[in-house]
Amino acid sequence: MTAPVTVLSLLVEEMNRGRITVVDLTQPLSPETPVIELPSMFAQSPGLSVEVISNYDDNGPAWYWNTLTLGEHTGTHFDAPVHWITGKDRANNTTDTIPVRQFVSPACVIDASKEAGQYPDYILTREHVQAWEGVHGKIPAGAWLLLRTDWCKREGKEAFLNASEDGPHSPGFHPDCLRFLAHERDVVGVGVETVGTDAGQAGGFDPAFPAHNIMHGAGKLGLASLCNLDKLPPTGAVILAAPLKIVKGSGSPLRVLALVPAA
Amino acid sequence: MTAPVTVLSLLVEEMNRGRITVVDLTQPLSPETPVIELPSMFAQSPGLSVEVISNYDDNGPAWYWNTLTLGEHTGTHFDAPVHWITGKDRANNTTDTIPVRQFVSPACVIDASKEAGQYPDYILTREHVQAWEGVHGKIPAGAWLLLRTDWCKREGKEAFLNASEDGPHSPGFHPDCLRFLAHERDVVGVGVETVGTDAGQAGGFDPAFPAHNIMHGAGKLGLASLCNLDKLPPTGAVILAAPLKIVKGSGSPLRVLALVPAA
Repeated sequence: MTAPVTVLSLLVEEMNRGRITVVDLTQPLSPETPVIELPSMFAQSPGLSVEVISNYDDNGPAWYWNTLTLGEHTGTHFDAPVHWITGKDRANNTTDTIPVRQFVSPACVIDASKEAGQYPDYILTREHVQAWEGVHGKIPAGAWLLLRTDWCKREGKEAFLNASEDGPHSPGFHPDCLRFLAHERDVVGVGVETVGTDAGQAGGFDPAFPAHNIMHGAGKLGLASLCNLDKLPPTGAVILAAPLKIVKGSGSPLRVLALVPAA
Repeated sequence: MTAPVTVLSLLVEEMNRGRITVVDLTQPLSPETPVIELPSMFAQSPGLSVEVISNYDDNGPAWYWNTLTLGEHTGTHFDAPVHWITGKDRANNTTDTIPVRQFVSPACVIDASKEAGQYPDYILTREHVQAWEGVHGKIPAGAWLLLRTDWCKREGKEAFLNASEDGPHSPGFHPDCLRFLAHERDVVGVGVETVGTDAGQAGGFDPAFPAHNIMHGAGKLGLASLCNLDKLPPTGAVILAAPLKIVKGSGSPLRVLALVPAA
């Protein structure tokens, strides 16, 4: 009757003792949650709208529930490879076919909060990643590369989207950095605090929107609108990020959690 | 530069070696996904509808994405305490306020597949649970109680909902069993393969819908429309079940995964 000790039983024990904590990397999802705004010639993705079905009333005397309408890429969300044309013909490229093993993966967290605070168009380069590796070790295959920018601390939609006449200004990745992460490090994907995985000005990069073009073309995943990355160590956390199992889904709002060794 | 060995690094290593696997307990989410059908005097919760925003076309030449409309309790889904009037006034009773620690919890799996196969109105009793405990040990506080019935193997909406003139016929829990689980075992919640946590005939139980009434009244959670419970051991798996962070959400479709020691 005594259960055997396994890594999973140790995990539960460490959680019960508070030596491993669960950190919520997810923004609240409400009608106020900001979504990406595209140039007007393209169709827009709607943010969340909520309609009450019943609220302990004649429509359902003992129960309360709502109907949700929202774009797949609303709030804290997951990008599947099929979201981009470069990932269109890959195998297992939709939310219902990606191997579930990838939804439980370790994290490498690069802190560019100071840089992005001083320069909103900050772009992470291969050299930045290699300098990080010099301190923290090589990024293992199958890890998330999470870019901390403290962008989640910007209050209000305007400050978060940070758009001016020439488009949005927010941090992201250099194309060469993404090639390095995808092909030389074989990460599972990249995660960011901003509204999408690409920098605000990435429409003018070569290729355009490289965090979509290059990563999804290589079968890699994306996480956007994360928060609380400042509560993660550079290495050692495990990310739980599982999209809804939407058949042929291009992505999904989701709850992203991190298992983190207590400080 | 060598990372310290922790339970989390061991977890990743065991996953990489295939000694811990990730099992998907989630049904595909599509417009065909069945949802609960209530008596006609109550408002109905809609299943999923999907509208394409762009599909590598003029609406978005390089990208594909959709808009989703669905009830919070569609397909494989999570029930928060606020879903039921008995949980209405509890603290931390909504999808955005439940402590995230609960979203990573061990599982106790009771196999009633033979019984439910022979008798669709099968009801799990306190005595059944105690007999299970006699073999597998006491259900620890904070565990999920998952009821395996192989109901997920029923093909098509009709067989899954299994309704006749006197309402649906599907397995569930006796009120006394739920009181035992909530108050004497302090489970985190119950999970089932059927369309909702209550038995098909539970509208006639005392109290009506006890898996909602009793469990949510005690601040406990629910998981419905699970699958692949036949791939879980009676004890030793860890369930990852994190709802969307919907502000004041009564529940949420979600991806449910299990970390399982390889056989």
